[in-house]
Amino acid sequence: MSETTNETCRIRLRIDLAYDGGAFFGWATQPAIRTVQGEIETALHRILHVEADDPDEPLRLVVAGRTDTGVHASHQVCHLDISPTVLERAVGHMQVPATTALEHRLQRLLPHDIAVHRIGVAPTGFDARFSALERTYVYRIADRESEVDPRLAGCVLHIDDDLDLDAMNRAAAATIGLHDFGSFATPNPGGTTIREVKRAFWTRVPSRPLIPDEGSDTVASDMAASGAYIVPTLESGLVCFTIVADAFARNMVRSLVNACVQVGIGKRDLDWFLGKMATPKREGSTGPIAPQGLTLEHVAYPADDLLASRAQAIRAVRTLPDTGTSGTRDTQER
Amino acid sequence: MSETTNETCRIRLRIDLAYDGGAFFGWATQPAIRTVQGEIETALHRILHVEADDPDEPLRLVVAGRTDTGVHASHQVCHLDISPTVLERAVGHMQVPATTALEHRLQRLLPHDIAVHRIGVAPTGFDARFSALERTYVYRIADRESEVDPRLAGCVLHIDDDLDLDAMNRAAAATIGLHDFGSFATPNPGGTTIREVKRAFWTRVPSRPLIPDEGSDTVASDMAASGAYIVPTLESGLVCFTIVADAFARNMVRSLVNACVQVGIGKRDLDWFLGKMATPKREGSTGPIAPQGLTLEHVAYPADDLLASRAQAIRAVRTLPDTGTSGTRDTQER
Repeated sequence: MSETTNETCRIRLRIDLAYDGGAFFGWATQPAIRTVQGEIETALHRILHVEADDPDEPLRLVVAGRTDTGVHASHQVCHLDISPTVLERAVGHMQVPATTALEHRLQRLLPHDIAVHRIGVAPTGFDARFSALERTYVYRIADRESEVDPRLAGCVLHIDDDLDLDAMNRAAAATIGLHDFGSFATPNPGGTTIREVKRAFWTRVPSRPLIPDEGSDTVASDMAASGAYIVPTLESGLVCFTIVADAFARNMVRSLVNACVQVGIGKRDLDWFLGKMATPKREGSTGPIAPQGLTLEHVAYPADDLLASRAQAIRAVRTLPDTGTSGTRDTQER
Repeated sequence: MSETTNETCRIRLRIDLAYDGGAFFGWATQPAIRTVQGEIETALHRILHVEADDPDEPLRLVVAGRTDTGVHASHQVCHLDISPTVLERAVGHMQVPATTALEHRLQRLLPHDIAVHRIGVAPTGFDARFSALERTYVYRIADRESEVDPRLAGCVLHIDDDLDLDAMNRAAAATIGLHDFGSFATPNPGGTTIREVKRAFWTRVPSRPLIPDEGSDTVASDMAASGAYIVPTLESGLVCFTIVADAFARNMVRSLVNACVQVGIGKRDLDWFLGKMATPKREGSTGPIAPQGLTLEHVAYPADDLLASRAQAIRAVRTLPDTGTSGTRDTQER
């Protein structure tokens, strides 16, 4: 009768989570290696009493931003299709909805370097990967001017040099727009390295104005005017790179950071960077920088009523057979 | 001829540093136990080729805020008196001033959970402990509303409950001024628990307004108006207690935090807290909360020309024999 006769009825869950990537070989499941996806899927199978190789209930996560080995996520998003009867098994003796029960059980079972923020039924048309409008990554560096906080050693890269943020921002500005980032990324088979960067900038997080006074920056003096006492931030003094794009190709953020840093320490000049942007060619001088400074911080989705059309549009772009290399996007965004 | 004939000429160094307190049994040197002071003094003896028990060159650090086991410091201050000839040994083959050389060598030799921000010759009259005007501590909590970041597990306390920040702020407000904190602190022998709290408040760090819009808070909209893209902070969503006092008695901050949290989760009411403030008496219900959420964030000193008079005044207050218990301060501030 209907087109969906052969499909099992499934519920799509949206899972928001965070992880310290330091002890993971990236997101994607790989045999006999510790990955974020692997840990969560293993926990799901245990909680829901599903065999690991059950073909009817694969419990496979689809993620918004595939992160590499050692890269962190503070706000990652994935989805999971699950049959209602299997989901219901999460409830057990709890007096809460099944999604809440699953959230609590996952939070308890998962190792300390993964935190589940929340689990809910996804709105109609939601696809963690294809509905996403844009991803935001932040790369944190302590340079010679920064005061090092040992508590952040796992998520900050130390560079024993002075960074010229103005020069780095001139390089970053050249990445904005639709470009082929072939100098800074490795294409997947059949994919491209064309991406649209929406924002990209370097900033030094203001040093903590603990006792507000007239000499401090705008934000601080606003707080002072309101009589508030500024709560110091853990990141004060760090150099942070924020980049927002529709999607990222493999190694793209870390390669751009590496190139900007080379400009920032004076090893390369802006023309070198502009040349790499103009002629997309992968080679040694534009390889990726160390992973520990990088964090996926945000994935933006459209309003609920636009989710399905967004996913259809992206899916179409990425599966069009006739557009050739230049029109398609990478088949696995990050 | 002069009063100082018998004193060896010494240089006083000011050392600014940070540490992750998680793997230390506090600041103060203790035999056969890993402490921050112990690690640094051991490193100093090695770098400067001084025997550990050399009576002429003790290399003893005097600290602004003695931290307990598991408590962190992002901006600790201490001083060290050292003879010029010994200090000069730090230079070796380096072409830099002795203080810079010592700074570099310490940074390299110290373990990863201690970071030396800088070392310099202290201004005349400077005393890390007695010149200090005030100390600032911050306690960080993730409650049920917070999004947990696994990277911060070592410096945030998780509380699986909802916190009523208004109630906690009413309690915090009652601590401001000169009070006997005997319900919240353990006096040292011969000392008191009277301290002057200058500021004390709870706040939830605003959630990161990654994409600035009209609906966000003042700070965010300021940034939006200037066209900047907000760099997210690691602490967004956490509940932070900031407290500033002339000095702190033993266990005082963590005991106040514990009492505020009991009010915040509704286990105790404000009257209970006010009663503890009115009748200073140490007992079980006002013991200290876990240490990992606590960080010494700042030590304030007067302008250079007021350092000596401040130190003299504080030293006098703390050594006056006739004032009795109520007039003296604790002999070891934190």
